[in-house]
Amino acid sequence: MTVVAGDETWRADSYVAAQFTRSAVSEDRAAQPLPTFGEWWEDRRRAALFSVEEVPFRELDGWKSQSGSDNLVHESGRFFAVQGVRVESETHGTWSQPVINQSEIGILGLLVREFGGVPHFLVQAKIEPGNVNTLQLSPSVQATRSNYTRVHGGADTRYLKYFRGGGGGQVLVDSLQSEQGAWFWHKRNRNMVVRVTEDVPLHEDYRWVTAQQLRRLLGVENLVNMDTRAVLACMRFAAPPRHLPAHDDPYLRALCRSYDPVNGTALHTDVEILSWHTEMRTRCDWHTSLVPLAEVRNWRRSGSAIEDEEGRSFRVIGVRVRTGNREINQWSQPLIAPRGTGLAAFLTTSVHGVLHVLVRARPEPGVMDTVELGPTVRRTSETDVAEDEPFHAEVAAADPRRVRFDTVLSEEGGRFHHAQTRYQVIEAPDGFPTEVPDDFCWVTVHQLMALLKHRHYVNIEARSLLACLHSLW
Amino acid sequence: MTVVAGDETWRADSYVAAQFTRSAVSEDRAAQPLPTFGEWWEDRRRAALFSVEEVPFRELDGWKSQSGSDNLVHESGRFFAVQGVRVESETHGTWSQPVINQSEIGILGLLVREFGGVPHFLVQAKIEPGNVNTLQLSPSVQATRSNYTRVHGGADTRYLKYFRGGGGGQVLVDSLQSEQGAWFWHKRNRNMVVRVTEDVPLHEDYRWVTAQQLRRLLGVENLVNMDTRAVLACMRFAAPPRHLPAHDDPYLRALCRSYDPVNGTALHTDVEILSWHTEMRTRCDWHTSLVPLAEVRNWRRSGSAIEDEEGRSFRVIGVRVRTGNREINQWSQPLIAPRGTGLAAFLTTSVHGVLHVLVRARPEPGVMDTVELGPTVRRTSETDVAEDEPFHAEVAAADPRRVRFDTVLSEEGGRFHHAQTRYQVIEAPDGFPTEVPDDFCWVTVHQLMALLKHRHYVNIEARSLLACLHSLW
Repeated sequence: MTVVAGDETWRADSYVAAQFTRSAVSEDRAAQPLPTFGEWWEDRRRAALFSVEEVPFRELDGWKSQSGSDNLVHESGRFFAVQGVRVESETHGTWSQPVINQSEIGILGLLVREFGGVPHFLVQAKIEPGNVNTLQLSPSVQATRSNYTRVHGGADTRYLKYFRGGGGGQVLVDSLQSEQGAWFWHKRNRNMVVRVTEDVPLHEDYRWVTAQQLRRLLGVENLVNMDTRAVLACMRFAAPPRHLPAHDDPYLRALCRSYDPVNGTALHTDVEILSWHTEMRTRCDWHTSLVPLAEVRNWRRSGSAIEDEEGRSFRVIGVRVRTGNREINQWSQPLIAPRGTGLAAFLTTSVHGVLHVLVRARPEPGVMDTVELGPTVRRTSETDVAEDEPFHAEVAAADPRRVRFDTVLSEEGGRFHHAQTRYQVIEAPDGFPTEVPDDFCWVTVHQLMALLKHRHYVNIEARSLLACLHSLW
Repeated sequence: MTVVAGDETWRADSYVAAQFTRSAVSEDRAAQPLPTFGEWWEDRRRAALFSVEEVPFRELDGWKSQSGSDNLVHESGRFFAVQGVRVESETHGTWSQPVINQSEIGILGLLVREFGGVPHFLVQAKIEPGNVNTLQLSPSVQATRSNYTRVHGGADTRYLKYFRGGGGGQVLVDSLQSEQGAWFWHKRNRNMVVRVTEDVPLHEDYRWVTAQQLRRLLGVENLVNMDTRAVLACMRFAAPPRHLPAHDDPYLRALCRSYDPVNGTALHTDVEILSWHTEMRTRCDWHTSLVPLAEVRNWRRSGSAIEDEEGRSFRVIGVRVRTGNREINQWSQPLIAPRGTGLAAFLTTSVHGVLHVLVRARPEPGVMDTVELGPTVRRTSETDVAEDEPFHAEVAAADPRRVRFDTVLSEEGGRFHHAQTRYQVIEAPDGFPTEVPDDFCWVTVHQLMALLKHRHYVNIEARSLLACLHSLW
């Protein structure tokens, strides 16, 4: 069963030079399939010996139900715990649900290096127990604090040193960003991009890819994982190709202008957007708190699942994992399993020739400051009915020619089981009103990215959509 | 005992016009004492019939010790509560202390209006039970959520409509900012500045003052209150006088340049500062949680005070208040009473002709994201010994000619009893090293103010110091 991960490394220079002539550096070449990527990916897939099996909670090694609280916890007291979150609100009532409590801060890091003047990004073929297709494309480093303090006795996290100040690179992006507020309690990761100029020893699970490759890979179902998308959102990784004629596509021209700083061309000034966000936060009267799982109401627990009585939300399940190329060869853990594919859609429209994105300020029980900016329309799963949500109809009935991005992508496979979301970027119909309900706001891409330099403004689904927008060139 | 607050109002235009010839609009005139301000203040002082009396907890009307938790709470379940906070850290151990829990969001709002081309700020002579000198200078609006939802049946909060979108003004500043992390749990207020062009009816407790007046008033002990300083920090309210000769004072020239955007003149780029802040937050392993007051260790409770056994921290006391010009005429409440005057000092130095301020990333139990940027040196009270703190000696032994600001000012009198802090802005000696310990960072004023547009970067003491810096012209 065990496959020893090869310790052989290549010098990045020679490795990339060898593949470079076949990599996507021009529009023409990029239009070809990605043979070297495909070969590598196929190879990694064959090497990925891996099995995931759903098991009753009592068969989860090292996990126990804590007496008194009923929380699902690890015996070491680390990793994460399944607990409860309670929301109390005068306007929305009181309710509770299970939540993953992992309030430590991990690192999602992407290395960038230029080869032949073209930026390349170091990605990893990584297995996670909840992944659709087992293997997905991760950033260079995806490390929990437990990973890098080595609670589980695993191996050193590869390439971590570049993100801990030890590799001599230049930090381009470094900010704390939240993750799923519907399923996590106060979970956030440090999203980093570091540029290196030195050679980087290349392990066989890793590969340098260009922006052009990434933009194509983002269009492949369940391939580019959530962590990669989250980091990619923080930078305009795909610049418009130089030979795109200016008149080719008014939508792309408007998108291009949307990356520029405001010069009277945005619907709202930066101060107005900050003030709107502050107002939305202030108006929300949710008080959220972590509670024992035993205190969660209207959920039932069997030996193999914790699920809401209405069958609309999600299930917590247990899995046993056997693998050949992860840090250790067998472990088990709880996962959150949503009920069917979710939806996250941005409506976009061009105002004075500048693309604007319609964000919604929405409260979620698990994000640290309760309200963040999310997609125009969002469903966490198929059973999360949202037909009366504003703009639901516009998204559901969008003219296919106006759907600019439409791919099913996965959420974090380390904590969620087959959590898939359909990501859509949709061009609103001509003459779409710019007047929107109070909790919605039209922002330019530049404005959204300015917020993204700081903590807790833009939620994880909106950040995934932003990565998709970047890929539209 | 009761004094009825006059309902007479003036038209701002005529009122300000009448005082305008005597207000500080030029350097020469400003060098005179402030007769009209002084007369108004004296008048307000005479009208301020007010008494504060320390009473045992059992005599606090409407307040009770909650059974089980021992928390000091109001019977309505609102206002605030005295509870406990516990900090658990592998590096700093575990400890707990009392804390004021008031996690709702209030508004601190300042109205600005130009008269004769000169911006004026609407300030209020406001009584608070914990104030040194009873009366201090507050912003136009200082409202808790309880105030404006009127839990206590008080009167409408004056001028609130301008900050709730009802006055037609222009929002210049609107951000959530934390307050004392040593004494509050997750307390923050919405700091707002709104510019109006219409007439504003003027109540006798309010007055329009110029920036020049404010900068002088900031130098008066215990006059400009914490909330006013917090809002003033968010804008460069005092511009350098036009006739200040360029060569007058190299320190002021460096300060002036420090307000400009970075052009290779700052020691650190904006990305470096954000990354440093993220690293400081990530490195801190404090887990903070709200706990019942009954679970706080090493504090003792008598009928009239809750205090730490070592007598080094602070006391929680109860007071009964009688007043003639507050919303209601008698109430009682707990207050936190620190032991003697605290200290907050900025070391500053000129690098390439640009003033830099030395901030320290410091964890505090009560701020929402644990780590914010604070003063170079900070003591919460006289008994908070900090002799081994970096730069303590440099501040304590500063050459008086290099102390640019040095005034004792008060913290929030609505929650703290006679909480005074000595605020100092100090010019570091020539040749002072720019290499500093990891948790310190030299930033320009522009960089600090850019962070201040967003939540929870700059703590309340650093913001007070920033207001003092603005006043140095």
